[in-house]
Amino acid sequence: MISRSPFGDTFEYSVSATQEQERLEQFVQNSRKTVVIQGLGFVGTAMAAAVANAKDASGNLLYNVIGVDLPDEANYWKIARVNKGLASVVSTDTSLDAAYTTAHANGNLTATYSPFAYTLADIVVIDIHLDIKKKQLGNAREYDFTFERYKEAIKTVAERITNDTLVLVETTVPPGTTEKVLKPMFELIGRQRGLNTSTVHLAHSYERVMPGKEYLSSITNFYRVYSGTDDAAKLATREFLSSFINTKDFPLTELHSTTASEMSKVLENSFRAMNIAFMQEWTEFAETAGVNMFDVIQAIRVRPTHRNIMAPGFGVGGYCLTKDSLLADWSYSTLFESEKHDTQKRLEISLSAIDINDMMPKHTVEMLKSAMPDLKGKHITVLGVSYLNDVADTRYSPAELFYDLCAKEGAVMQLHDPLVSYWVEKATDVHTSFDALAGLKHDAAVFAVRHSNYLCMTADQILSALPGVSLIIDAFNIISDGTANDLRARGVKVLGIGKGHWN
Amino acid sequence: MISRSPFGDTFEYSVSATQEQERLEQFVQNSRKTVVIQGLGFVGTAMAAAVANAKDASGNLLYNVIGVDLPDEANYWKIARVNKGLASVVSTDTSLDAAYTTAHANGNLTATYSPFAYTLADIVVIDIHLDIKKKQLGNAREYDFTFERYKEAIKTVAERITNDTLVLVETTVPPGTTEKVLKPMFELIGRQRGLNTSTVHLAHSYERVMPGKEYLSSITNFYRVYSGTDDAAKLATREFLSSFINTKDFPLTELHSTTASEMSKVLENSFRAMNIAFMQEWTEFAETAGVNMFDVIQAIRVRPTHRNIMAPGFGVGGYCLTKDSLLADWSYSTLFESEKHDTQKRLEISLSAIDINDMMPKHTVEMLKSAMPDLKGKHITVLGVSYLNDVADTRYSPAELFYDLCAKEGAVMQLHDPLVSYWVEKATDVHTSFDALAGLKHDAAVFAVRHSNYLCMTADQILSALPGVSLIIDAFNIISDGTANDLRARGVKVLGIGKGHWN
Repeated sequence: MISRSPFGDTFEYSVSATQEQERLEQFVQNSRKTVVIQGLGFVGTAMAAAVANAKDASGNLLYNVIGVDLPDEANYWKIARVNKGLASVVSTDTSLDAAYTTAHANGNLTATYSPFAYTLADIVVIDIHLDIKKKQLGNAREYDFTFERYKEAIKTVAERITNDTLVLVETTVPPGTTEKVLKPMFELIGRQRGLNTSTVHLAHSYERVMPGKEYLSSITNFYRVYSGTDDAAKLATREFLSSFINTKDFPLTELHSTTASEMSKVLENSFRAMNIAFMQEWTEFAETAGVNMFDVIQAIRVRPTHRNIMAPGFGVGGYCLTKDSLLADWSYSTLFESEKHDTQKRLEISLSAIDINDMMPKHTVEMLKSAMPDLKGKHITVLGVSYLNDVADTRYSPAELFYDLCAKEGAVMQLHDPLVSYWVEKATDVHTSFDALAGLKHDAAVFAVRHSNYLCMTADQILSALPGVSLIIDAFNIISDGTANDLRARGVKVLGIGKGHWN
Repeated sequence: MISRSPFGDTFEYSVSATQEQERLEQFVQNSRKTVVIQGLGFVGTAMAAAVANAKDASGNLLYNVIGVDLPDEANYWKIARVNKGLASVVSTDTSLDAAYTTAHANGNLTATYSPFAYTLADIVVIDIHLDIKKKQLGNAREYDFTFERYKEAIKTVAERITNDTLVLVETTVPPGTTEKVLKPMFELIGRQRGLNTSTVHLAHSYERVMPGKEYLSSITNFYRVYSGTDDAAKLATREFLSSFINTKDFPLTELHSTTASEMSKVLENSFRAMNIAFMQEWTEFAETAGVNMFDVIQAIRVRPTHRNIMAPGFGVGGYCLTKDSLLADWSYSTLFESEKHDTQKRLEISLSAIDINDMMPKHTVEMLKSAMPDLKGKHITVLGVSYLNDVADTRYSPAELFYDLCAKEGAVMQLHDPLVSYWVEKATDVHTSFDALAGLKHDAAVFAVRHSNYLCMTADQILSALPGVSLIIDAFNIISDGTANDLRARGVKVLGIGKGHWN
């Protein structure tokens, strides 16, 4: 079997349970504690690096770290890369690669497909996803959600851990999951296996990992929230987190229950999503009233009580802000509320915010059409298809809705992104250089992501990249007033989201 | 005629235009510039104190200040008090009284009912209110609004100012007011009066005055935003604001238009209102899920990007947060949007937030009824009727809806507030001492405002003030977990808004 990584390397693999078991038993033959990380995705990859490089006061490595992922086409490459001393996430953070190189040299980090690893664990960290799917963009109240696959995966842990293993859940889950879904499962399986079920120690702690240049550091140098289902779990989690997080500068916060920790995570992201959605109606107001909303935001942010007011933009994407409120809503309406009330309670504002954010790119389409009513056959260039500046991640990118709406009207879509050469979700190639763009026809162009490469471009540079363009929309405060004026002097119409003063 | 102040003093008055004109002409017989402040309410009172005490680098007073208000029963007392060297606002800020004493001694502050004052002004500051009234609580989309009274008042200024007077509007107004409503009026009247209309200089700047102990300082030691209808107005406003604001520590922000400045103000307050409303649904979720939301909020606020997340509470009151989004909505749907679209655009999220906040106290009623289903004949004591902690202001206090809903169910309502002896809006007496409460019967009590007097009360102190009480609801995070446990040990049921861990 062959597994191909997004780095371009390919790995042949076959599965041998006995061999792998022996290898892992050998790997933990030392006095260090063993941490097994389930899931080598975006969080697990950084966690493995952070934990493998944790040392005690004397400089001795603290842990054996075993990353676990699946032996299939989509995932095996992660295992293979880690075992070669390479990170399993594409990142601009060079310290991540360095951490993998070091851990590989130290010999205390390995990866495997064998669930036997959980048998060896003092601590298991759950870093697998729990998905929730909207049935339709723009109606967040309707979604498909089930715990089945998630529980299936965690069952492989419950079936193998020994007494007093700490199981630390880092997944973003509906509040109540650890207490009401996982704990009963661990206790049932524990009883069946003849474990002392009072030694089942479950905890929840959520990371605040950010993609980009500070990816690994966002694990080790940032605040953490945690809780456990019993005091032993809380204590063990505090000790574990303190061993690889700089808690001197970023003290830990212990909450009273895992439900509180789980709620804290989804609330954080819902707060952010809601503040973005709130700004959308004011952005449209500012455009109507001729106001530069970015200036206004700057004027407001000087107040400490108002520092978190968000700025106008093109849209919201990524894995978290687009869905975490739905997990919370599912919990509220299904896991808790149904026990107490006849009527189903929902997180109305938070769900509305998701809808507004999901539909945001439509406003840029409307702005485009206000100046170019018929898009049919027009060559529209989108600059930026990732969901965030200086990041290659295209999951739930707002560019997707923009692309679909324009394409539906018959526009010829052209894409550029310095970090994305292939847009998986749209199965489309993306130009990564301005030179490549220069050879194309351009009727209108939309700057959609605040990639460093797009900031501070002069009118000359823009027109070299987009020869013949007659309309430019700055959807994310990328073009300065001066450059916009220079472009206008060259006959280009320039509009901008939140830039009412350009009308 | 008699005018009675909220301080309890009464003033007899009669109007003599000629005498007053002579007195004012005499008052400005010096080389200082003259600033006339229209409206001696909450903002005008602090502004008059700040401006009258402004000095140049050599320590010389900069301005003659004339406060203007109406010679009627409701307002004349303000004029009389200022002319005796007394402030015209009830405040716990002792520096305000000191500022009035000093200005009175210096002889550069007076007040009058005579609009002749505007004739003498170099600068007129507009500090009168512009009201907007909801037709019904809980439906912010329907309101009564008209500019007529506001324009009538400002017309008295336009009819009297001389060339090159700066008119600085500080009122919270629908964005666009200065440019689209006031400027045409000033230009028309200016032309009729034979003024050089290019010398009409209008500006907008909004204060961020806060009631309480730092009332006056919140004028002089805080950030300001401003703009003007022309460069001369901007320059004159910057010079004027810099003369009494500590701009070294709190630099001014100039925006590109008065509409931007006006929008900034209502957006600030809408941001705050929306963040409070957002928390309401999560508060109810936390209560259902057994989570202490205050702990969660504290865990989240360590993130700089999340520092402004609001905490659960009893409700939202006061003059600004309850209505500023409506002013913005009126502007969007009427002043601007109607020109451009067939369909009326509204600030949907911001209006919903107002509705949620207006109805918040209903949730405390529901919590009360969850433990005491039949309120008929029950003695319910409300601790705190003002809209904000340590402030006597009861305008749009959330206690009002709570009072009405309980009273409607036949409860006997009893009120306490250390700062309010008479609740104007409900025309009801309020107990100010705990001793007075101790003589009453108490079935349930609700702590509704975070007044200093209520914080840190022990169970003994609470039970001395509320003898016989069987149910206490902490609606604003006033009672500690320890005190709640002590109360429970004494047989009192204790519930709390956002305190799911108390369930």
